[in-house]
Amino acid sequence: MSAASQINIVAIVTVPGDSLGEATKAFQTCVLASRREPACLFYDFGQDMGDPERFVASEAWRDEAGLKAHEASPHFQALLKTLEAMKAKVEIMRLASLVPA
Amino acid sequence: MSAASQINIVAIVTVPGDSLGEATKAFQTCVLASRREPACLFYDFGQDMGDPERFVASEAWRDEAGLKAHEASPHFQALLKTLEAMKAKVEIMRLASLVPA
Repeated sequence: MSAASQINIVAIVTVPGDSLGEATKAFQTCVLASRREPACLFYDFGQDMGDPERFVASEAWRDEAGLKAHEASPHFQALLKTLEAMKAKVEIMRLASLVPA
Repeated sequence: MSAASQINIVAIVTVPGDSLGEATKAFQTCVLASRREPACLFYDFGQDMGDPERFVASEAWRDEAGLKAHEASPHFQALLKTLEAMKAKVEIMRLASLVPA
């Protein structure tokens, strides 16, 4: 897979029950800022309808460099800090798109 | 959450090692057809870079009716049949978007 290939990210975040409001705001802030990044093809967080403590990020990045820029961005770093402070559990899957945009 | 709200889907599909080629083609066919659906905001499959037998769908649908139309579509039904025949394992998460398009 070349560095020029589209990368999708799915991240499953499990948030403690008493931090749902704070987590939701933090996710929304990160979504809005991430969508403004030039390499961003798609970015959203959704709350699992079957488990309100589970939130899932769906992301698509034009290439590896774009994803790296996102990971270094202040808004993503701020989200990581918030999630760490509330002891959320994070599982990240890096995916090679089968049908790049 | 109103029926008019955007729904994201993340589906994690685990495919037997001897069916990766067939599964990839089936996913790609479904992606191309799904992207033509009017209610489709985003649709892609990606292969997990850490586990080649794991494929993850990232989808965003304008509303419940749009998702239902997709689930009834010939291309989605054909994918389900293919995955069933190869005994793939499918986990589907239905997510309420935190920042609808």
